[in-house]
Amino acid sequence: MQEFGKLYGVGVGPGAPDLMTLRAVNVLRSVEVIAIPRSNRFTKSVAWRIAEPNVSKRDDQELLMLDFPMTKDPAITEPAWDVAFTEIGRRLESQQSVAFICEGDPLFYSTFSYLKNQAQSRWSGVEIEVVPAVSSFTAVPSVIQMTIADGQERVAVVPASYGLEELPSILELFDTVLLMKVSRVMPELVRVLDDCGLLDNSVYVSKATMEHQKVVTDLASIQNEKCDYFSMVMVKKFDRSGVLEGAVDRG
Amino acid sequence: MQEFGKLYGVGVGPGAPDLMTLRAVNVLRSVEVIAIPRSNRFTKSVAWRIAEPNVSKRDDQELLMLDFPMTKDPAITEPAWDVAFTEIGRRLESQQSVAFICEGDPLFYSTFSYLKNQAQSRWSGVEIEVVPAVSSFTAVPSVIQMTIADGQERVAVVPASYGLEELPSILELFDTVLLMKVSRVMPELVRVLDDCGLLDNSVYVSKATMEHQKVVTDLASIQNEKCDYFSMVMVKKFDRSGVLEGAVDRG
Repeated sequence: MQEFGKLYGVGVGPGAPDLMTLRAVNVLRSVEVIAIPRSNRFTKSVAWRIAEPNVSKRDDQELLMLDFPMTKDPAITEPAWDVAFTEIGRRLESQQSVAFICEGDPLFYSTFSYLKNQAQSRWSGVEIEVVPAVSSFTAVPSVIQMTIADGQERVAVVPASYGLEELPSILELFDTVLLMKVSRVMPELVRVLDDCGLLDNSVYVSKATMEHQKVVTDLASIQNEKCDYFSMVMVKKFDRSGVLEGAVDRG
Repeated sequence: MQEFGKLYGVGVGPGAPDLMTLRAVNVLRSVEVIAIPRSNRFTKSVAWRIAEPNVSKRDDQELLMLDFPMTKDPAITEPAWDVAFTEIGRRLESQQSVAFICEGDPLFYSTFSYLKNQAQSRWSGVEIEVVPAVSSFTAVPSVIQMTIADGQERVAVVPASYGLEELPSILELFDTVLLMKVSRVMPELVRVLDDCGLLDNSVYVSKATMEHQKVVTDLASIQNEKCDYFSMVMVKKFDRSGVLEGAVDRG
């Protein structure tokens, strides 16, 4: 069986460099290749902007820049991804260790999931390690200091851009709903939340923990603005929160 | 207005000490008081066992041990919590900075949520900072290397011990379901997952990233065992995963 270098998927966290884990920093300092995804050759990688302050690049370490175009068109993504995965494979085949960095967590709406699937078929037997990270799932609630869930509460994570038809049923069943990928559907989202009587229970957060972080409680006021890619809406019903404080039945 | 010390809610992550963030380490090294929750005076705090290797206690720093009994009975929890919050308040009133540590994330099924609510009424105007952490939400998937969500997928987090009646509807609407607090309902949970045809898509993980981590794919084999408090079942349908690889409609 062919020997490969080890492949790491390293989450660098939601944006603030000091929200990286000690393990992420240690792995990035130790590997031979740091694989860095960016949208195109003219933009700086968001993940590398987060990691760089914590990783003093060694002279014998390669920074491998890889282009992942921001589109859903497979005629564009598939050839670009093939180039990226081929470049990574070349290093792994030379038994170099490769750390692929991702903003947020490697398994939560991240390109690393595709790399992981490809790895298993392209480099049979390759050792993979996933370094989990602080994701927007905990980062967004932390900046607005809103409980994600206490004792009895249920949480849903829903990519808003893939249809909002089922959101009213989801809001029935869940206490906290985190809506990802809201940027292109804000007017429709505002309408659904208003119909459900939950517009006042909703908060918009973009670039959580980053430099230009933005928190908006009046969602209607920004519904026609262009929203940031790193934005989320958190909806909190509070119906079942505070169970141990006697606010609701103790179940 | 009275001046208070600053109150921090610091998540120390899922269990492995090197999964703490740089920020958590820095805050714990800088504060005057580290408030440490434990079940009772005879057990070591799980959160402190995670944090201690990264925090060299300073001579002028206080380690304040606080008992949070493991029960849902308010006749026991409420007086114990009052003692704990009163002790914390005494330090804040002396303008000492206090960091309350939590395993996982401070806002995800954590005692810190109750402290935060109490803080706002007990110490009006106190400054609070939440340091988000790697939670079981990303830690459990990382140890079994299973994608939480890609492009179109929806994720649900459900505390299993508060009723499984709605689980079939939730499994209809969601692609990934993370079941928390499974320990006392495993036989019932196994039955529901089997009825939904998803038993083979379910993985049990306890003590993720910790020393005695356990992964079980045959849930039926452990349904009558006593499960660990830090355990979770991850159910993954894969119906909508791999969107960019052409596995499903691109939406």
